[in-house]
Amino acid sequence: MGLKVYLSGEIHTDWREQIIEGAKGLDVSFSAPVTNHEASDDCGVTILGAEDNKYWHDHKGAMVNAIRTRKGIADADVVVVRFGDKYKQWNAAFDAGYASALGKSLIILQPPEHDHALKEVDAAALAMTRTPQEVVEILRYVLDGSLPG
Amino acid sequence: MGLKVYLSGEIHTDWREQIIEGAKGLDVSFSAPVTNHEASDDCGVTILGAEDNKYWHDHKGAMVNAIRTRKGIADADVVVVRFGDKYKQWNAAFDAGYASALGKSLIILQPPEHDHALKEVDAAALAMTRTPQEVVEILRYVLDGSLPG
Amino acid sequence: MGLKVYLSGEIHTDWREQIIEGAKGLDVSFSAPVTNHEASDDCGVTILGAEDNKYWHDHKGAMVNAIRTRKGIADADVVVVRFGDKYKQWNAAFDAGYASALGKSLIILQPPEHDHALKEVDAAALAMTRTPQEVVEILRYVLDGSLPG
Amino acid sequence: MGLKVYLSGEIHTDWREQIIEGAKGLDVSFSAPVTNHEASDDCGVTILGAEDNKYWHDHKGAMVNAIRTRKGIADADVVVVRFGDKYKQWNAAFDAGYASALGKSLIILQPPEHDHALKEVDAAALAMTRTPQEVVEILRYVLDGSLPG
Amino acid sequence: MGLKVYLSGEIHTDWREQIIEGAKGLDVSFSAPVTNHEASDDCGVTILGAEDNKYWHDHKGAMVNAIRTRKGIADADVVVVRFGDKYKQWNAAFDAGYASALGKSLIILQPPEHDHALKEVDAAALAMTRTPQEVVEILRYVLDGSLPG
Amino acid sequence: MGLKVYLSGEIHTDWREQIIEGAKGLDVSFSAPVTNHEASDDCGVTILGAEDNKYWHDHKGAMVNAIRTRKGIADADVVVVRFGDKYKQWNAAFDAGYASALGKSLIILQPPEHDHALKEVDAAALAMTRTPQEVVEILRYVLDGSLPG
Amino acid sequence: MGLKVYLSGEIHTDWREQIIEGAKGLDVSFSAPVTNHEASDDCGVTILGAEDNKYWHDHKGAMVNAIRTRKGIADADVVVVRFGDKYKQWNAAFDAGYASALGKSLIILQPPEHDHALKEVDAAALAMTRTPQEVVEILRYVLDGSLPG
Amino acid sequence: MGLKVYLSGEIHTDWREQIIEGAKGLDVSFSAPVTNHEASDDCGVTILGAEDNKYWHDHKGAMVNAIRTRKGIADADVVVVRFGDKYKQWNAAFDAGYASALGKSLIILQPPEHDHALKEVDAAALAMTRTPQEVVEILRYVLDGSLPG
Repeated sequence: MGLKVYLSGEIHTDWREQIIEGAKGLDVSFSAPVTNHEASDDCGVTILGAEDNKYWHDHKGAMVNAIRTRKGIADADVVVVRFGDKYKQWNAAFDAGYASALGKSLIILQPPEHDHALKEVDAAALAMTRTPQEVVEILRYVLDGSLPG
Repeated sequence: MGLKVYLSGEIHTDWREQIIEGAKGLDVSFSAPVTNHEASDDCGVTILGAEDNKYWHDHKGAMVNAIRTRKGIADADVVVVRFGDKYKQWNAAFDAGYASALGKSLIILQPPEHDHALKEVDAAALAMTRTPQEVVEILRYVLDGSLPG
Repeated sequence: MGLKVYLSGEIHTDWREQIIEGAKGLDVSFSAPVTNHEASDDCGVTILGAEDNKYWHDHKGAMVNAIRTRKGIADADVVVVRFGDKYKQWNAAFDAGYASALGKSLIILQPPEHDHALKEVDAAALAMTRTPQEVVEILRYVLDGSLPG
Repeated sequence: MGLKVYLSGEIHTDWREQIIEGAKGLDVSFSAPVTNHEASDDCGVTILGAEDNKYWHDHKGAMVNAIRTRKGIADADVVVVRFGDKYKQWNAAFDAGYASALGKSLIILQPPEHDHALKEVDAAALAMTRTPQEVVEILRYVLDGSLPG
Repeated sequence: MGLKVYLSGEIHTDWREQIIEGAKGLDVSFSAPVTNHEASDDCGVTILGAEDNKYWHDHKGAMVNAIRTRKGIADADVVVVRFGDKYKQWNAAFDAGYASALGKSLIILQPPEHDHALKEVDAAALAMTRTPQEVVEILRYVLDGSLPG
Repeated sequence: MGLKVYLSGEIHTDWREQIIEGAKGLDVSFSAPVTNHEASDDCGVTILGAEDNKYWHDHKGAMVNAIRTRKGIADADVVVVRFGDKYKQWNAAFDAGYASALGKSLIILQPPEHDHALKEVDAAALAMTRTPQEVVEILRYVLDGSLPG
Repeated sequence: MGLKVYLSGEIHTDWREQIIEGAKGLDVSFSAPVTNHEASDDCGVTILGAEDNKYWHDHKGAMVNAIRTRKGIADADVVVVRFGDKYKQWNAAFDAGYASALGKSLIILQPPEHDHALKEVDAAALAMTRTPQEVVEILRYVLDGSLPG
Repeated sequence: MGLKVYLSGEIHTDWREQIIEGAKGLDVSFSAPVTNHEASDDCGVTILGAEDNKYWHDHKGAMVNAIRTRKGIADADVVVVRFGDKYKQWNAAFDAGYASALGKSLIILQPPEHDHALKEVDAAALAMTRTPQEVVEILRYVLDGSLPG
């Protein structure tokens, strides 16, 4: 058994790298959104032409990014959604809802101060984690049954 | 043709009442989450017993609320998701993602200052609106083809 | 057994009225897109605000119309798609493909000069008809087994 | 992440070759309908026997071609639909509707003069493009996050 | 709880009438194919025009009948398939396979001499019955828990 | 919003009656398996003929009962599964798994001594309850937002 | 593009071998039921123990064979169903119905004398063929666009 | 044709090893839950932090285990569920129900003393077996058509 894992959410810290590094040697293939913030914001207009209106500027980019996001989630067995300290992060919560409706196994990675605000998201998840290391330990346990320590 | 509409999101203003009032006379049936904030937070422990741990307190409530939320979205033709000025509102974005994956027609109701943060949510929607009145006008047009003015 | 029938396609002749009139007394409920051409083109900007760019003008309208179209097709048992003499009518062919993928029973109504161009659409249909009267006769036969003449 | 891309629509210019050439080095596998016009028209009768009636001649061919088309679309992550300058191209719009109902990511490739007529098709798409090069740039960005220039 | 029951198969004896009569007073709604053999054979050409070729004559009729058959099976909770003494009855077995793939509860009504030939069909069924009366007794038991005698 | 609720599991106490009585006045329609133990065991052979072999005796009955059980679960919004003090109750756990895979909202009703053995079942549920009264309070809250006390 | 093809139906002539031989060099993987008649009839009792009752003898075998049949059809892109000159062949028609409901591309292989009796089966198919060679030619055309002659 | 087989249920005897050993040389890939009882019980708290309340201790573990269980069942063609002599084994019955609703081929492995209590589970299965050797013989027959002896 191998696992396909989609890493959704916060793009300003290295949590994805920590998970990927920690999972080395496990039969896991990871996918993720484009995490270059500027490229992600501007991909639509850069490829398809500028827009005067900021709303359509954003819209074109968000739709292009959706090609990758939907593919990543659709293919995944497990979707990890990370909520960070800053920003609205509604795309992260959207991905969690989308993945949940498709029956994917959800793991949420969140700081304690967001626990109350994330209760509906957590209610759809199979694990609420605090650190990338905990995510790695879950993946390892799921794959080979071994526990830390 | 009648429409079933689920009204998700912000619970601190009267936007739901405005839409329901505005849609009087149209063949629309509305549903919504429990909008009593306190009841929504405490339903789990009130019915099923207290929890020492705030996380499980919240969890029990969120799961009970999910019975209503999932039913409302599953039955809906149209899901309207309102993002207000305050709070994290991740449950709103979660509902939007959940509804999108089920193929529901999404209408988002949002203030301009959230446009950038909501671009991924809007990219999955069929309409981005600014006022409850616009939502009503869409419902009326969809049902009988009449436009305002 | 009653039938729900969605009438898609050409909006410049009275073929829908002929079918609805002809089917009087049968247990059929009909739905259709908004057939007021101007309202259909302008619904987006009329409700949601003007656009400088004609593409987005059209886009907003097409997305609002999709709320009705998708609901109509999703609820239908039978989708009748009419191709007329004029215009590109790509929305009609799109609806036919959409309905086919959802497993709806397709009836196509087309003039002989379009037979070759519609062969892929016809290949997904259960009946290719020439007149609204033929559509009515199919609906009657399907519902009560009676044949004309 | 690799992508499976189905190239639907117009068969009289080399747009498919341009996309396939441009995407060299990317992890994309392409499929497409049979683009030999004569073979596509006559495959049914050539293999299964002649028909006196042109309608059934076309029908037999269209059904044999559907085996390939449905397989290509069902397997695809992304469906690119090209509308050219000429012909009715209802099969292209049919494929777009079919792919949309299956939840595939749609990219439409169209000349500006068709924008209005394609508004319903575009409303179901994640990108509206003008050139094969733009399609290639989207595929590249989706796969590795890099933008042109 | 009410049941929707589709009565598929043999059309030369009064087994449908026996079941419908026997189920009087139960909350069951029945549907069935057109059982007028001649109308069923000729509906396609009568409505849509004659065919020189017997194969297409049959084909047009079979496709029109499929509108009713698919609707009846899609809506049903229970599909009863009757195999009689005569004829090939491949449409009956086809309906059984179709209903089975849709997860419908199958009841087969068959004479003992066909048991071996029907073993694959029976393996997909929840009951193998010998008489219309047994079918009625099952429907009564399923609805109100009462047994005969 | 009304709710359809299927009451699965233990058949030797009056928990179903307590829930139905407690839910009077709420917009809930209940369904349940046949709870007459003897009828449930013997329905197959009584209707379809005796079997020498006890395994096939049981098998025929279990398949007839499945017609009702599957219909009840398929139609339900909420599936309540009651585990009592006695017996293996594998059919109850089977129903819970079946309902879970269909995405139904699960409420489990169980005594504390079974908590450890039911942990996998509870992990798929939205509420773990101890009394019929708690189930009623959940249904009331889900329907009208009111809490006890 | 490769094709997975399931070869259902008649087991007394070498039509499967002809197709597999003819398709050499094409990217097709074939599957089929167990075609050893005796093994197919007796597999249930041979493995799981004898039955006094011929009906259960057949039933046990048919259910074991269903493991293979369902897997083969579920995995297939194309299902070829062969009707021969003899026997009831209800399992073949059942497979055709089952495959049709799953949206598989159906090719029927039948002698002219069965055309009328197979009209409902043919109405669900994309090709009606007379010889294994025609099936091979379709597979070749679907895969590489080449026609015979 | 290869088979993916999930081995669910009892974890205190070596039945899984017997099946895997017996199936050597066959194209079968097996998966299973974590069978280390202690790790399975404690995985949640070991990775995600201790709980004072035994119910939440169990809950966290059961949800982590569900990531593996759901993946294993979702990927499987065949789900074998073993019921042993001891314990409640509700997770086994839950898995059987879950797999059944997903349309997986079920094989149950059970001692005769549980036949009556498992009749509803067996009614959803394609084979009821007594020994791991019988399971192996079924897998061999399904894959290559050969029977023992």
